[in-house]
Amino acid sequence: MPRIPAPDSAACLAAAARQQQLTKPAGSLGKLEELAITLAGLQGRDIPLPLKPAITVFAGDHGVCAEGVSAYPPEVTAAMVANFVHGGAAISVLARANQARLEVVDAGVAADLAALPVVHAKVRAGSGNIRREPAMSAKQCAAALEVGRMAARRAIADGASLLIAGDMGIGNTTPSAALICRLTGHRPEAIVGRGTGVGDQALHLKCQVVADALARVGSAPLDGITLLAELGGLEIAAIAGFYLEGAAQGVPLLLDGFISTAAALAAQAIAPDITPWLLASHCSQETGHALALASLGLTPLIDFGLRLGEGSGAALALPLLQQAIALHAGMATFAEAGVAGKSAP
Amino acid sequence: MPRIPAPDSAACLAAAARQQQLTKPAGSLGKLEELAITLAGLQGRDIPLPLKPAITVFAGDHGVCAEGVSAYPPEVTAAMVANFVHGGAAISVLARANQARLEVVDAGVAADLAALPVVHAKVRAGSGNIRREPAMSAKQCAAALEVGRMAARRAIADGASLLIAGDMGIGNTTPSAALICRLTGHRPEAIVGRGTGVGDQALHLKCQVVADALARVGSAPLDGITLLAELGGLEIAAIAGFYLEGAAQGVPLLLDGFISTAAALAAQAIAPDITPWLLASHCSQETGHALALASLGLTPLIDFGLRLGEGSGAALALPLLQQAIALHAGMATFAEAGVAGKSAP
Repeated sequence: MPRIPAPDSAACLAAAARQQQLTKPAGSLGKLEELAITLAGLQGRDIPLPLKPAITVFAGDHGVCAEGVSAYPPEVTAAMVANFVHGGAAISVLARANQARLEVVDAGVAADLAALPVVHAKVRAGSGNIRREPAMSAKQCAAALEVGRMAARRAIADGASLLIAGDMGIGNTTPSAALICRLTGHRPEAIVGRGTGVGDQALHLKCQVVADALARVGSAPLDGITLLAELGGLEIAAIAGFYLEGAAQGVPLLLDGFISTAAALAAQAIAPDITPWLLASHCSQETGHALALASLGLTPLIDFGLRLGEGSGAALALPLLQQAIALHAGMATFAEAGVAGKSAP
Repeated sequence: MPRIPAPDSAACLAAAARQQQLTKPAGSLGKLEELAITLAGLQGRDIPLPLKPAITVFAGDHGVCAEGVSAYPPEVTAAMVANFVHGGAAISVLARANQARLEVVDAGVAADLAALPVVHAKVRAGSGNIRREPAMSAKQCAAALEVGRMAARRAIADGASLLIAGDMGIGNTTPSAALICRLTGHRPEAIVGRGTGVGDQALHLKCQVVADALARVGSAPLDGITLLAELGGLEIAAIAGFYLEGAAQGVPLLLDGFISTAAALAAQAIAPDITPWLLASHCSQETGHALALASLGLTPLIDFGLRLGEGSGAALALPLLQQAIALHAGMATFAEAGVAGKSAP
């Protein structure tokens, strides 16, 4: 496992000192000041550079759909992958709006995507049904993690200075909820949500499916990779690998919603040093996302009631980070502007 | 008073129908869907165009500073105006980041700004001390409203399709708090905040100053223009005029923080039909901003603990509106993408 570096605390201190000198009352830019200081530490620069974002959407199918936990049929996974590459999905639009590199990776879709211009890295055609069996074998989980690592390496080699992982996988809120329950200690009722929009009866069933999956795995201590193999999914394991590689290379990671946060919790279980590289974007409408973010010590930037995945909430928040950096870099200091500045009393 | 048009409800309905057909579970883009539908109604187009934002910062000084209500001396108003036009202020940076037109208007700064490239529209050199006297005469208030109207006309003539008003005026949270108290019925303790950052003693004094100003004006019914003249300020009245003209011309208005929201409440008192043209951007750290927005029926998009003014919070939120429009316009429908779509059950 590659070593994950620590952020540059000297750059954070220098950035915090600069914030005190910019032409505004001290603290008056609130969260924007915190973001600039955090990004200074992650980039190792007193004045961070504008972010070059890369978005990688990982797709996979889920055997647990056989239990009736999703409002959509599994075929939608492959249809939406086509929509991504044809430019019509939400994440396609947001990637263009933010001049972000967009790559789509088939980590485990249960359909033949050979005709589509995606990264073909299918580990297996859909995961096992986690209510009754492991999502994948240990060897398959290692392969899925490596799919994500490779994607991070490509993005960083292309110049990315911020990584966003998106997900596409009908049924994937169920394994994500199972991982979050297991990794935070919360009960299914606190974490399981409606996903793409199931009704009350399916929601109740989904809680039971998650409880059964957790019972199947038992309560003995298990490492993060084993938990991903037992309770996760192919795109979820790939996202965890993507995050682990990004952090190892010193690139900040902007989380999206419920699925990506479950993957981040798994990545943290594998390598706790990843924590400072994780940034929250939004709080999803999916039940339990707020608790999962809190467990990572993260506060979301926006709360728009999103529940789409694909990386959409993270992409939406990108301009907030870019503006925090622009202000930090572009505002005049009191001395430069000749304003009678002072820190507020 | 020019008539304010109503939003186009047919365009709203058509936009809502389009949202149901885009390739995502119904409702999964949360607040972004609401924004697209609202902007469709305000633009009168089923698919709204990208926004061309214009930011006008109105500057004025406040006689009430003599009471010791601000952490900064009044001279900072003029120095910050110079900083705006030299490009070093927060709003200068954010205007550039958002490709927004930026104009600075001297509505009543108590210093000679003749050497600066601003719009010279000084109604008087600073307002009266509202604890002891009206902020301005009725005639001066009419002139200040017209300063704002003229600025909106210039921006719209330049092609602006969204107006942002910013404020600069040392001491201006005090008259804004007085206006908000009077127009919402809340007590000073619920509304008055620390502004640029006063300590506990000055905060207590500021509450007393606002209470004295309210007592001076009395509780008999007064129209919105009279309240602006009694309790407001020159830049606050100009912002109210800017909003009234924007709404009359059918251009949406993106509010900033505490001062602009006080001006919006005054504008609403003058012309209640303005209400649907008002959009909230952020919730300021300033005590009472949340209550003032709630009184207008508005929910802020972001809560970053900002308390700077200048239009900074509104500018920060611009990309969220632009992305809502981009998604509405750019996403494929289920039919276009060949995805087996359906509304969620």
